Amino acid sequence: MFFASDNTGPVAPKVMTAIVNANQGYATAYGNDQIMDRVRDKIRDVFEAPDAAVFLVGTGTAANALALACHINPWQSVFCHRDAHVEVDECGAPEFFTNGAKLVPLSGGSAKIDPESLRAALVTVDDTDPHVVQRGILTITQLTERGTAYSLEEIRTLTQLAKSYNMPCHLDGARFTNALVSLGCTPAEMTWKSGIDAVSFGGTKNGLMGVEAVVLFNPDKAWEFELRRKRAAQLFSKHRYLSAQMEAYLTDDLWLDLARKSNAAAVKLEAAILSLPGGQLIHRRDGNMLFAGWSRKGHQNAKKAGVAYGLHFGQSLDGPDDEVLTARLVCNWATSDAEIADFVAAVTG
Amino acid sequence: MFFASDNTGPVAPKVMTAIVNANQGYATAYGNDQIMDRVRDKIRDVFEAPDAAVFLVGTGTAANALALACHINPWQSVFCHRDAHVEVDECGAPEFFTNGAKLVPLSGGSAKIDPESLRAALVTVDDTDPHVVQRGILTITQLTERGTAYSLEEIRTLTQLAKSYNMPCHLDGARFTNALVSLGCTPAEMTWKSGIDAVSFGGTKNGLMGVEAVVLFNPDKAWEFELRRKRAAQLFSKHRYLSAQMEAYLTDDLWLDLARKSNAAAVKLEAAILSLPGGQLIHRRDGNMLFAGWSRKGHQNAKKAGVAYGLHFGQSLDGPDDEVLTARLVCNWATSDAEIADFVAAVTG
Amino acid sequence: MFFASDNTGPVAPKVMTAIVNANQGYATAYGNDQIMDRVRDKIRDVFEAPDAAVFLVGTGTAANALALACHINPWQSVFCHRDAHVEVDECGAPEFFTNGAKLVPLSGGSAKIDPESLRAALVTVDDTDPHVVQRGILTITQLTERGTAYSLEEIRTLTQLAKSYNMPCHLDGARFTNALVSLGCTPAEMTWKSGIDAVSFGGTKNGLMGVEAVVLFNPDKAWEFELRRKRAAQLFSKHRYLSAQMEAYLTDDLWLDLARKSNAAAVKLEAAILSLPGGQLIHRRDGNMLFAGWSRKGHQNAKKAGVAYGLHFGQSLDGPDDEVLTARLVCNWATSDAEIADFVAAVTG
Amino acid sequence: MFFASDNTGPVAPKVMTAIVNANQGYATAYGNDQIMDRVRDKIRDVFEAPDAAVFLVGTGTAANALALACHINPWQSVFCHRDAHVEVDECGAPEFFTNGAKLVPLSGGSAKIDPESLRAALVTVDDTDPHVVQRGILTITQLTERGTAYSLEEIRTLTQLAKSYNMPCHLDGARFTNALVSLGCTPAEMTWKSGIDAVSFGGTKNGLMGVEAVVLFNPDKAWEFELRRKRAAQLFSKHRYLSAQMEAYLTDDLWLDLARKSNAAAVKLEAAILSLPGGQLIHRRDGNMLFAGWSRKGHQNAKKAGVAYGLHFGQSLDGPDDEVLTARLVCNWATSDAEIADFVAAVTG
Repeated sequence: MFFASDNTGPVAPKVMTAIVNANQGYATAYGNDQIMDRVRDKIRDVFEAPDAAVFLVGTGTAANALALACHINPWQSVFCHRDAHVEVDECGAPEFFTNGAKLVPLSGGSAKIDPESLRAALVTVDDTDPHVVQRGILTITQLTERGTAYSLEEIRTLTQLAKSYNMPCHLDGARFTNALVSLGCTPAEMTWKSGIDAVSFGGTKNGLMGVEAVVLFNPDKAWEFELRRKRAAQLFSKHRYLSAQMEAYLTDDLWLDLARKSNAAAVKLEAAILSLPGGQLIHRRDGNMLFAGWSRKGHQNAKKAGVAYGLHFGQSLDGPDDEVLTARLVCNWATSDAEIADFVAAVTG
Repeated sequence: MFFASDNTGPVAPKVMTAIVNANQGYATAYGNDQIMDRVRDKIRDVFEAPDAAVFLVGTGTAANALALACHINPWQSVFCHRDAHVEVDECGAPEFFTNGAKLVPLSGGSAKIDPESLRAALVTVDDTDPHVVQRGILTITQLTERGTAYSLEEIRTLTQLAKSYNMPCHLDGARFTNALVSLGCTPAEMTWKSGIDAVSFGGTKNGLMGVEAVVLFNPDKAWEFELRRKRAAQLFSKHRYLSAQMEAYLTDDLWLDLARKSNAAAVKLEAAILSLPGGQLIHRRDGNMLFAGWSRKGHQNAKKAGVAYGLHFGQSLDGPDDEVLTARLVCNWATSDAEIADFVAAVTG
Repeated sequence: MFFASDNTGPVAPKVMTAIVNANQGYATAYGNDQIMDRVRDKIRDVFEAPDAAVFLVGTGTAANALALACHINPWQSVFCHRDAHVEVDECGAPEFFTNGAKLVPLSGGSAKIDPESLRAALVTVDDTDPHVVQRGILTITQLTERGTAYSLEEIRTLTQLAKSYNMPCHLDGARFTNALVSLGCTPAEMTWKSGIDAVSFGGTKNGLMGVEAVVLFNPDKAWEFELRRKRAAQLFSKHRYLSAQMEAYLTDDLWLDLARKSNAAAVKLEAAILSLPGGQLIHRRDGNMLFAGWSRKGHQNAKKAGVAYGLHFGQSLDGPDDEVLTARLVCNWATSDAEIADFVAAVTG
Repeated sequence: MFFASDNTGPVAPKVMTAIVNANQGYATAYGNDQIMDRVRDKIRDVFEAPDAAVFLVGTGTAANALALACHINPWQSVFCHRDAHVEVDECGAPEFFTNGAKLVPLSGGSAKIDPESLRAALVTVDDTDPHVVQRGILTITQLTERGTAYSLEEIRTLTQLAKSYNMPCHLDGARFTNALVSLGCTPAEMTWKSGIDAVSFGGTKNGLMGVEAVVLFNPDKAWEFELRRKRAAQLFSKHRYLSAQMEAYLTDDLWLDLARKSNAAAVKLEAAILSLPGGQLIHRRDGNMLFAGWSRKGHQNAKKAGVAYGLHFGQSLDGPDDEVLTARLVCNWATSDAEIADFVAAVTG
C-alpha cells in the first residue's frame, strides 16, 4: 500500500516494452537517435506547436531548473508559490542552475498563486533601480503541490499579469497529464494558448522510468538549452532509451490513459477516506493527489499496517484517538481497487 | 558498423532483464530502494572499501563534476590532462558544478599526464598568495582519452606528487573496467591503494543503460554529495531502475566479462587495421579504444559504406589516395567478428 | 537639505586629513601596509577580541556578502528579515557571492526579526532530507532598516535560537555605531558576547569615504576570506588609503563622536517633525534614521523646496492636503541645526 | 626604493586635491553625482565615442571581470595570454563573475598573444557541438604583463581574427596610458578603431587612489553592467570621490603627464641597469615596466639595501656571484632620478 508518491509506482508495461525494443543494435548517441526525431514531431503535434523546441532530461528538477535558467538572468527573480516544488523541494536547484536568481515566494490557497500576491510582488520592483533584483519569470505548477488544478482562466489571469511586465511564464507539469484530463482541455489550451512559454512536461510520475520533456514554444532559446543541458550533465549518451519511453507514452493515448487511471483511483480513494471516522478533504481533489484527514486512531492503524504516505509536518501520532490528522496521498496508474480496499481495512484496523 | 563510441552500443541483455525484473510493485524513491542497499554493499566489496560512500548518477559528466565539486573550493584548480574529458568534452560542467574552479590543462603523451608537467604546475602556485588560484585536486582518466592505461606505478607517481601538496585525487573511470582487465589488477589496487580518493565508476559505456557510480573512499563528504546531487538534479525518483542495472552489472562478473569482450574485439580490430594499406597505430591500445591510421582511399571507402567513426580534427577526405589519415574507433561488448570483417571489407572497398 | 541617506554626506575632516597624510612615499600594496597592522590591532581592541580576523572592503554590500559566503554552503539558507538590506537592496549580491544560497525572509515589526518567525522557519527544515535547502546562517541588521535597534536581550534571543541549530550569526552593522551609542553598550556586548560570529562594521555611512571592516571572531575562516575577497575584486591595491580612514575613525573616539552627532541631529529632527501638522513617528527612533509622517501639503512644500528624502512606496503627492504621507529621513554627522530649521521652514512653506 | 609595482606609489597631488575639494556638502549617492556627469562626457570625448557607456569601479580586477562577464555566457571561453592578469593574478575573479566561463591560455612572446596561437584555439571549437565550451571573448592587455605594447597593427590582427568568429574584444588597460603615450596614438585608435569593444581604463596604477573606468563602446550592455556592478558590490555609495579622481585625471592632460613621467623614469632605469655588471633586458621596454637581469651579487646587494622589486620565480639569491638573475621593476609617476641613483648605488654595493 504505497500512497507516498506516484514516483514509487512501476513503469507502465508498454513503456517497458518500448525500452526493451529499443535495445537493438547501434544508435547515435546524445539525442541524435532516430526515435528522438519522431518524439520531437509527436510532442509538436500534441501541443499544436510546430516550431517548438523539444528536449528530454532525466529528472523533473532538471526540467524545471533548465527551463527557468534559459529565460532569466542571475539578477532576476522567479515568482512562484511559496509551496512550489522549485521553492521547497529541489535543494536550491533553481538557484544553482540560474547562477543565483532569487525565488520570490507568493501566497494563495491550495498552492495556487493568488493574483493579488503576484501583483503586489511585481509592482514593488523598480526596474530602473540597480539595487533591486529585477523581475524575471513566473512559474506555476499544474497540478499544484496540493493536488489542485488551475482553471484555464486562472492560468490566463496570472500569465497576463506577468506579460504586462514582459515576463515569460513557465509551467511545471510534473503532473501535467493528470491536470489535463481533469480539465478536459487540450495541451495547447493549457499552455501557449493560455500564455505559457515553456513547459516541464512530466512523464516519470505518470508511468515512465525517468524522462521529462522540456517544451519551449519560442525556439529562440533552443541552442542555449542544448548547451545548458550538456553543461548540467543532463545530456544522456544512450538517449534512445529516453526517447523510446516518451514515444511509447505518446502512442495510442497511453499518457492520457495512465493519467485517467490514477485520477480515477484518487476518486475512489477520496470516497473511501470520506467514509472513515473524521474523514475529510483538506484541499479540493482535481487529479491523482489527495490532501485528506481522518482520525488519529486510523493513522495509527495505517502506519502499523505499513501503509506508506506522508503525515503533514508537525503532527504527532500520539494523542487523543478522535483528533483528525491530515496527510498527503498520491495514486498512480497502477493503484488498484484492492489496494484501496486494503487501505481502508488497514485504517479501520 | 558503429565504432564511433562504446555508448552507441546496446544494453547488455542481463542488464535489461534486471531492469524488467525491477518493475514489480512499489519501491521507495530517491535512492532509498532496497536494491541500492545491495549495490552499496557490492561496490564496497568490489573495492575492498567497507566505509566508502557510494552514489549512482545518470551520466559520466555528472559523476565527474559532482566528485570534483565535493573536494574543492571555487578558488581552487583541477589539474587534468589537456585532452581530458572534463576539459574538452563537458561544456564546462566542472566549472559549473564547482562554481567556477579553474581547470589547469597539463601535457603528456597519449593523454597521460606527464609527472613533470604536473610538478611544474604545482610548484608555481604560491599558497600564501591570495591573488593566485589555489591548488585543488588532481584528476586522471583511466582508460585515457587516447585509449591508453596508466600503469599502477604511473598512477602512484602522480598521486604521490599531488599528495605531497595535500591534494586529493580523482579517477575518471568512464572506461574503468576496460583498464582494469587490461592491467589485470584489483579495483582497490587501481584506486585507493594507488592514492585515489574518489572514483567515477563508469557503467554506461560498458553495457548499462545510463548509470555511473561515484565512490568516495573517505565518506566524510557523503552528506555533501547527497545535497549536491539533489541540487544538481541527479537524484532520480525511480532510482530502483538505476540500482537494478548496477546490481546486474556486478553480479557474476558481468562487468568484467563485458569489458573483456570489448577489449578482445579491439585486439582483433587492431590486427585488422594493421593489415590495411598504411595501417598503423597512433597510440598504444590498452583497452577497447583505438587510435589508428590507414590510407585516405580506405577512409573514403569506409565512409561511403556508412562506417561510423571519427576522423581526427583537421583532416580532409579529399587528397592523395595513399596518404594516411588517422581516426578513433571504439569497440563495445557487442562488437562482433562479423562487424570487424565487414569493416575491413568496407575499407578495402 | 539632504536627508535621503547618511551616505550622501561628506567625509569627516579628520578622516580626510588622514587620507592626505597617508599620501607620502611608498606603501606595500594589497593590505600589507603598516597602517593596516595598526588598524587590525585597534579593531581587536575595540571589540575585545584579540584573535579576531579583520579585513577592509570597499562597500557594505561586499562586507555583508563576503561575511555570509564564508559561513555557508550554496545549498544552505540565510535567515534574514524580509526588509533586510541583503534581501531587498543588494541586487542579489548575497546569492552571487554564496553561489546561490537561499535567503529566507522573516517577519517582525520595525524590521526586527520576530523570534517566532525565525523559530517557525528553522523548525520546518529537515536536516536529514537532501531535497531541502539546509539551515545556514542568521543575519540581523543593527540599526535595522527601519531605524530601530535590537536590545542586547533581543539579539541574544535570536542568536541562541540560531545556535540551538548550530548556526553562525552575522550582524550587518552598516549603522553599527549609531546603534552602539544608542544602546550605550560595548562593541563586544553588542556582538560576540551576544552570540554574533561575524560583523560588517560600517564606516562609510558614519563619515568615512568608503570603507567597511569585516570582523570574524573565529579566525578559522580568515584565509578563506582573503581568497574570497580577492576573487570578488575587493582587495584594493592602494589599500593604505582604506587603512588610513579606518585608523582615523577609531582614533580619539571619532567614530563614537560622529554617531553621537548624527543621532543627536535625529533627535532634533524628530522633535521638529512632531511639531508639524500631522507630524508622527512610524517607527521608534533609536539612532539617526527616522520613519515619520506629516501632511501631504507639507510634503509638497518640501519637495518644491528641493529637500531630498524618500517617500514611502505607493504614496502620491496628489491628494487631500491634510492626509498624512510617510517618509524616511536620515541624519548624518554633518546635519546642522540650520538644516533642520530650513527643513521645517520648507515644509511649512 | 620601491620598484615592486606602480600601485605602491602615492596619489598624484592634483588628484588628492580634487578629492579634498569634492568633500563639500551633499552629493547624490551611487553614481548619480554631478561630477560623474562630467566624467562621462570627458571619457566619451577622450575616446571620441559619444555613445559609449562609462562606469567607475574600485579595482582593476573588478573592471576586467565585469567587462568580460557582460559579453559572454558561462559556457563560453575567454581567450587570453597564458601570462594575462585575468589568468594568473585575480584568484579566479573572471570565473566567478562570469559564473564559470573557461579561460583559454594562449602563447606568444613577451606576453603578447601570437595570432597563430589564437587561430589554433579558435578553429578547434565546433560551434555546433554542445559538448564543447563555445567561443566567447578575446582579451588583450596593454601594456602587457611583460611591459610590452602591442602595436596598433598587432591589435588589429588579433581583433580581426576574433571578429571573423563574431567574438567581441576586450582590452585590459591597467597601464593603458603608459602604452598610449608610448605608441603616440589616440585612445580611439588604440581601442574601437582597432576592433576593441570594451576597455578597462586603468587609473590606480597611474596616480589615482583607487578608480578604474569601464568603457563599453556598444552601450547595449549598459543596463546589464549597472546590475552586475551592484550585484558584485562595486557600486560605491559615496561615488563622488571616485568621480573626482577621474575628473582630475582627465583634466589638463594629467593622465598623459603622469604616464610620460613613469615611462621616462623607466627609460632612465633601463639605462642604469644596462650599465650594471651583467645588465640586460629580458623583454623590450615599451612603457614603465622593466624585465631585466643583472648579477646575483648585485641582487644580493639590492635586497640587503631594502630595494623592493620581484625576482623571477624559481631563482635563488644563493649561488655564484656573476650569474645573472632576472627581475621585474616598475616605475611610477613619482619615481625620481634620486631613487634610480640610489638603486644603482644599492646594487653596486
